[in-house]
Amino acid sequence: MNTKPNSVELIEVAPRDGLQNEKVPVSTADKIQLIERSFAAGYRQVEVTSFAHPKLVPQMADAEAVMAGILPKWKDKVLIGLALNARGAERAVAAGCNQINYVCVASDTFAAKNQNSTSAELTARAADVAEIAKGAGVPLSISIATGFGCPFEGEIALSRVIDIARAVLVHDPVEIGFADTIGCGVPTQVTEMMAAAHGLSRTVKWRMHFHDTRHTGVANAIAAVHAGVDYLDASVGGVGGCPFAPAATGNVAAEDLVYSFNRMGIATGLDLGKLIDTAHWLGGVLGKPLPSAVARAGQFPSTAA
Amino acid sequence: MNTKPNSVELIEVAPRDGLQNEKVPVSTADKIQLIERSFAAGYRQVEVTSFAHPKLVPQMADAEAVMAGILPKWKDKVLIGLALNARGAERAVAAGCNQINYVCVASDTFAAKNQNSTSAELTARAADVAEIAKGAGVPLSISIATGFGCPFEGEIALSRVIDIARAVLVHDPVEIGFADTIGCGVPTQVTEMMAAAHGLSRTVKWRMHFHDTRHTGVANAIAAVHAGVDYLDASVGGVGGCPFAPAATGNVAAEDLVYSFNRMGIATGLDLGKLIDTAHWLGGVLGKPLPSAVARAGQFPSTAA
Repeated sequence: MNTKPNSVELIEVAPRDGLQNEKVPVSTADKIQLIERSFAAGYRQVEVTSFAHPKLVPQMADAEAVMAGILPKWKDKVLIGLALNARGAERAVAAGCNQINYVCVASDTFAAKNQNSTSAELTARAADVAEIAKGAGVPLSISIATGFGCPFEGEIALSRVIDIARAVLVHDPVEIGFADTIGCGVPTQVTEMMAAAHGLSRTVKWRMHFHDTRHTGVANAIAAVHAGVDYLDASVGGVGGCPFAPAATGNVAAEDLVYSFNRMGIATGLDLGKLIDTAHWLGGVLGKPLPSAVARAGQFPSTAA
Repeated sequence: MNTKPNSVELIEVAPRDGLQNEKVPVSTADKIQLIERSFAAGYRQVEVTSFAHPKLVPQMADAEAVMAGILPKWKDKVLIGLALNARGAERAVAAGCNQINYVCVASDTFAAKNQNSTSAELTARAADVAEIAKGAGVPLSISIATGFGCPFEGEIALSRVIDIARAVLVHDPVEIGFADTIGCGVPTQVTEMMAAAHGLSRTVKWRMHFHDTRHTGVANAIAAVHAGVDYLDASVGGVGGCPFAPAATGNVAAEDLVYSFNRMGIATGLDLGKLIDTAHWLGGVLGKPLPSAVARAGQFPSTAA
C-alpha cells in the first residue's frame, strides 16, 4: 500500500484491555475518570469495559456501573463494550453500549485457554453475538486475537487469520481488528496482513492492536498507517498485558504512538500533553511506573504543546 | 530510497557508549568478556573503549588495559576506539585500535556541555584527529551527535547536520555516523537524513545510532535499513544513556533490532540467542534489569534458535 496517509484514528483500550488483568482493584470512579480523561484528550472511541463473567474477570465486575457513570453525558461518543458470548452482548446492550466488540482467536490452544473453545467454535459464536447486536441496532466489531503469533503454537499462518476475517464478514461488522496479542509481530507481517485484508473488503474498517512486548509496537503501528489501516488500538501509559504471556508488557502506549505520529506529520486529533498527564495519573492509581516511554522521558522539544 | 535491502551490519557499542555512564565500576576483565562475547555472537566491529580523559570518564580509565586484553587475539576484528581530541587519538593508536571514532556535535549548547567547545570548534578539531589517524594508517570514522534533536536547543535543522558531514568528508573518513543522542528522532527524519547523506557521498559508509528513549529506536532502525544505511550501532541489553538527558534510556538494544530484522528477513549475521545470553550476563554484572525488551520477553517462536 504505502499510501502514507496523513491521519489515523486511535481507539483507547486502557479502561478494558489495559485494566482487566491488573491485580490492584481500580475503583469505578477511577475507571470513569480514565474514560472521561480519554474523551478530554480527543478520543472519539473508547473500549470502556468488558461484559465477561465477573468470576473470570473480577476487575470488570462493575461494567454496568461504569456505563451508568458515563451515560448519558458521553452518549455521542463510541462506547465499546467487550462481549465474548450472547450473555455478554445482552448485558452490553442493556448497559447502553453503542458498539459491541467480539473476539475470535486464530489459534486453538490460545482459544482453549482464553475462552475454553476451539478457534472454529469462536468464529461460529460470532453469529450469536451478531444476532443480538443486530436486533438491538448496535454496531458490531470483531477482533481476531493471536493473529501475529501464538505463545503456544508459535507462527500463525496469515491464511488462518484471513479465513476468520472472511467468515465473520458475513455478520456485517462495522470493523474488524487484528491483534498482536503477545507482541511478537513485525512490520512486514503488518503490511502483508493489511494487503490481504483490503483484498477481502474495502468497505469494512480495519483495525490493528499491538503490544510492545518486543519493542516492535511503534514500528508496527507506523507500518499499519502506511498500509492504510483505519484504526489503531492504544492504551494510555501502555497499561495492559496478557495472563497467558507472563513476560508481556502492555498495549502499545498511546503517548508513544502520538509522539511519533505528531513528529511524522500523521494527525490523530489527540492532545499529547493530556495523554501524558493521564498516564502519570493512572500510574498513581495503579501504584507503579507504566511502560510508556514518552510519559517517562517527556515530549521533545520539551516546550512542545 | 526504500530499497529494502536484505542485510545490514550492526556495530556493538555497549563496551564504550553502553558502559561509560554506568555508576557501578565494571572490571577490565568483564569489559574484555563483553567484547569477546560480542565477537562470539558474530560482530565484526565493536566500539571497544574511549580514550577520554580518565578524570572526565572514569569508567573508561582502563582503555589501554582493555585493548591489551583483546590483542593480539582479535586483531582481525574492527576495534574502534573513541577519541575526542589529538591526545585521545594518539592513545588509541598506541593501544592498537584499528579504527578511531571522533565525535562532532550539531548543537552548540550540547557541544559546550559535552566537550566544552562550540559545534564549529569540534568540526574543525576533526582535522587534528584525522592527521594522527592518517599518519598512523588507522581508518577514521566520525559521529555527529544530537543530529535528530538537542535536549537544550530542541529541533536541529537537517542542514546543520549535513553541513558538518560535508565539512568532515574532506578528512576522508571510512564512515560517518548520525546519532540520535537523546532518542527523539522519528522515521521520517531518518529517511530524509539518509537521502541527504547519499546526496553528499555514495562511497563513504553511512551509520546511524539510535536510543530508544521514546520507543522509536526499532522503527528508526528499520527506516534506516530501508533507506540504505550501511551500519547501525546497537548495544547488547540496551545499556547506555546520556548524562545530559536524565530520562533517557540506553542505546537501542541489539536483541530488539536483531529480533525484528530476523523476522523481517533482514540478515545481520548475529546470533540472537547469544545476544540474549550476553544481555542477561551483563545485567548481572551491572546488578539491574536492562532495557532490552527481547532479552526480557524472550524469542518468538520460543523454540527459535
